[in-house]
Amino acid sequence: MTSTEEPTKTAPTAPPAGDVESQAPATGFGVPGILSRWRREDLLKKGSLVLRVIGFLFSLLAFIIMASNSHGGWEDFDKYEEYRYVLAIAILSTLYTGAQALRQVQEMSTGKQIFPSRTLALVDFFGDQIVAYLLISAASSAIPITNRMREGADNIFTDSSAAAISMEILAFLVLAFSALISGYKLSNQSYI
Amino acid sequence: MTSTEEPTKTAPTAPPAGDVESQAPATGFGVPGILSRWRREDLLKKGSLVLRVIGFLFSLLAFIIMASNSHGGWEDFDKYEEYRYVLAIAILSTLYTGAQALRQVQEMSTGKQIFPSRTLALVDFFGDQIVAYLLISAASSAIPITNRMREGADNIFTDSSAAAISMEILAFLVLAFSALISGYKLSNQSYI
Repeated sequence: MTSTEEPTKTAPTAPPAGDVESQAPATGFGVPGILSRWRREDLLKKGSLVLRVIGFLFSLLAFIIMASNSHGGWEDFDKYEEYRYVLAIAILSTLYTGAQALRQVQEMSTGKQIFPSRTLALVDFFGDQIVAYLLISAASSAIPITNRMREGADNIFTDSSAAAISMEILAFLVLAFSALISGYKLSNQSYI
Repeated sequence: MTSTEEPTKTAPTAPPAGDVESQAPATGFGVPGILSRWRREDLLKKGSLVLRVIGFLFSLLAFIIMASNSHGGWEDFDKYEEYRYVLAIAILSTLYTGAQALRQVQEMSTGKQIFPSRTLALVDFFGDQIVAYLLISAASSAIPITNRMREGADNIFTDSSAAAISMEILAFLVLAFSALISGYKLSNQSYI
């Protein structure tokens, strides 16, 4: 053991942690603070992925139910602007949540980020928030006409419309929650 | 000038700032960091108040226009559930933004907070966000029926409805921006 005595060059107070590749300034102090921060960020990442997958499923369901909702005559979703709006937003939301979920899975499996994380946090937050607003807007616009139709005719057309609207409201709730998480991530981002 | 020579007790690096009553841990370092943080928080506070006052005005306009929109016969807002929804949400939003603006003015003039700031940040954020969702929902629900009516009759009733809906959309935009600021405040809050 060649112990070269240079006592004042490096202070050996902080032992090197195992896998230090993204040692961001932690809010706690020392190694426990960093570890707790990592654990929280990991939880947020997984929660965000799960929410997006659920949002994707609900949007896809809304899209399929509304797109197949043509039964001839007046029972055709394409004749009503509200239902076309519901369909358009369902497609948009399906594409957005699907793309985000794919990107997150790819990031988790390879550990690499394609885009810089600051841009990503911005896109995440504004994307989630705008899609949430669009979903609640589309669902709200289609509810009154469906209500009126169901007073007269309670058949498969109005039932399918109601189902598609319900799916869209569920997708809205999920996206609104996802926007909360993204907003939290974004606010921390600007402080690193 | 009585200069008592006690050289090692207090390090005189940070001169005491003028009005130190809420010296929170700053993210920058030293006095410049604290000052820049104060300046930013002051700007956020004022911006939030201005947004709420604008939101209050738009909500009040939507409320007044819709509430006075009765011209006899079928031209009565009370006969349509969408317009009743618009009116209800306009009243809610007027009350919420008015109360928040009053509280903020009172806080700014007296410098005292009635509620603990953590609770307040939560109420602020969720209040803004929920009112924003309700406003876009109410406006969206009333747009299709107004569109259909205007195809047949372009008179003072449909014009007033369109005006109230527009005011509600403007109030939504303001509240959505206010929710952004409140979300930013809330995220920082949890780190103090």
